[in-house]
Amino acid sequence: MNYTFKRTIYLNETDAAGVIYFANLLIICHQGYEESLANFGINLNNLVKETDCAIPIIHSETDFFKPIFWGDQILIKIIGQLINETEFYLNYHIFKTEGERKLAQAKTVHVGININTRKRTNLPEKILTWLTLDNLT
Amino acid sequence: MNYTFKRTIYLNETDAAGVIYFANLLIICHQGYEESLANFGINLNNLVKETDCAIPIIHSETDFFKPIFWGDQILIKIIGQLINETEFYLNYHIFKTEGERKLAQAKTVHVGININTRKRTNLPEKILTWLTLDNLT
Amino acid sequence: MNYTFKRTIYLNETDAAGVIYFANLLIICHQGYEESLANFGINLNNLVKETDCAIPIIHSETDFFKPIFWGDQILIKIIGQLINETEFYLNYHIFKTEGERKLAQAKTVHVGININTRKRTNLPEKILTWLTLDNLT
Amino acid sequence: MNYTFKRTIYLNETDAAGVIYFANLLIICHQGYEESLANFGINLNNLVKETDCAIPIIHSETDFFKPIFWGDQILIKIIGQLINETEFYLNYHIFKTEGERKLAQAKTVHVGININTRKRTNLPEKILTWLTLDNLT
Repeated sequence: MNYTFKRTIYLNETDAAGVIYFANLLIICHQGYEESLANFGINLNNLVKETDCAIPIIHSETDFFKPIFWGDQILIKIIGQLINETEFYLNYHIFKTEGERKLAQAKTVHVGININTRKRTNLPEKILTWLTLDNLT
Repeated sequence: MNYTFKRTIYLNETDAAGVIYFANLLIICHQGYEESLANFGINLNNLVKETDCAIPIIHSETDFFKPIFWGDQILIKIIGQLINETEFYLNYHIFKTEGERKLAQAKTVHVGININTRKRTNLPEKILTWLTLDNLT
Repeated sequence: MNYTFKRTIYLNETDAAGVIYFANLLIICHQGYEESLANFGINLNNLVKETDCAIPIIHSETDFFKPIFWGDQILIKIIGQLINETEFYLNYHIFKTEGERKLAQAKTVHVGININTRKRTNLPEKILTWLTLDNLT
Repeated sequence: MNYTFKRTIYLNETDAAGVIYFANLLIICHQGYEESLANFGINLNNLVKETDCAIPIIHSETDFFKPIFWGDQILIKIIGQLINETEFYLNYHIFKTEGERKLAQAKTVHVGININTRKRTNLPEKILTWLTLDNLT
């Protein structure tokens, strides 16, 4: 799966140091993941109810190369990959909209769990299909 | 009900203007409300499950008199009042810890609703009792 | 000034009660205000530096009529009005995208202050012009 | 450096899945870092102004082992280590207050930069001293 997400940095995402607060980058990346699913017709809220499968994040990473400021236009390239039938990861490459300076990168790892037992379970079919798609826009 | 809550302002609560982001003051006030309930032995999460009564906020207000900075020690005096058996409000008076400059004030109005019907319902007994308490610390 | 802003509710904006966390509605409204300025060519970050005038919020209000859920499409109609040369307010009317149920409303009051003295000052020309515009999209 | 931080999980830190929103764990960890500095007498806001040295995060990681719910009492053990004179890391081990289930862990890497040039610079003396302390409470 790959998907490109464009965003402006809002005031609430910055801090008194004048740049984006580090953990907010993960929130923005997750919003891109949600938008990519929505664009493919997946409402994650409904999917959980239909399948009894929730998809929590078990691992995340971020690296910051350049400061990101209030009002900056950013572009996030999301690349998703199945690890096995219960698990996938998403890589996020964050650029300035104009030109190609890589500002930051991030990764999240997601697993399927049964919402009643909280044990690992296979990911829903729709998620598997979504993960096979290229140039989703 | 009245309760005093002390807090330091954290970096994530500020923005690029160098002061607290306005909506974060409401989050901090709500944390004081949760702490006041916890101090009285109410776990709101469990209370909802036991009584099928959720207590959403239907109205909020804030007024800012002085800027609040990263690292500031603040003190919030919370005063609660029953309006009727389905509704109460909380007033929040925000001061600097040292001295008596009023930095800001806020208000939230809360109503009991049945979580299945989402219709108004009487507030749980424990909430009514908590609202009658003075100098809860 | 009037401006219409469309948004999906993201997971990070909801809470364990299953609906949008009340203070997050103000954050979303402020993002609409920022987008309206950006659409008119105002970068608030640069404007502050050019004019030494910051525009903090001194008052906010919200009213909630219906719950707002994760994944909901919302539409915010923003109406801005000058109060005097140092002060303006914004009203926000929040609807479901499909149809006309009013979900919530909000208000913010903004004042110009000199960033060095933190005293009231006239709003920048660009803000006054932006406030006169109709059907800004 | 090691420091133990206790916290209750607030409603605003959870999401519609009923547990803590993943990125909020990093915010809570950073609050523990700020509290550890404050306990040692360091106001990071003032330190930046005095030394022209800011200390942004260049890398973060989190691992989640068990769900963390609204109202949960958590205990974070923070262990800090100097890497070289411009760089240190913090490890965070998150437990339930009662007993010893490890719920999650996190890591942040911090570098000193000159706020004017944004180039790497030696960390302030106070930070180096703080990093040598054991059982800071």
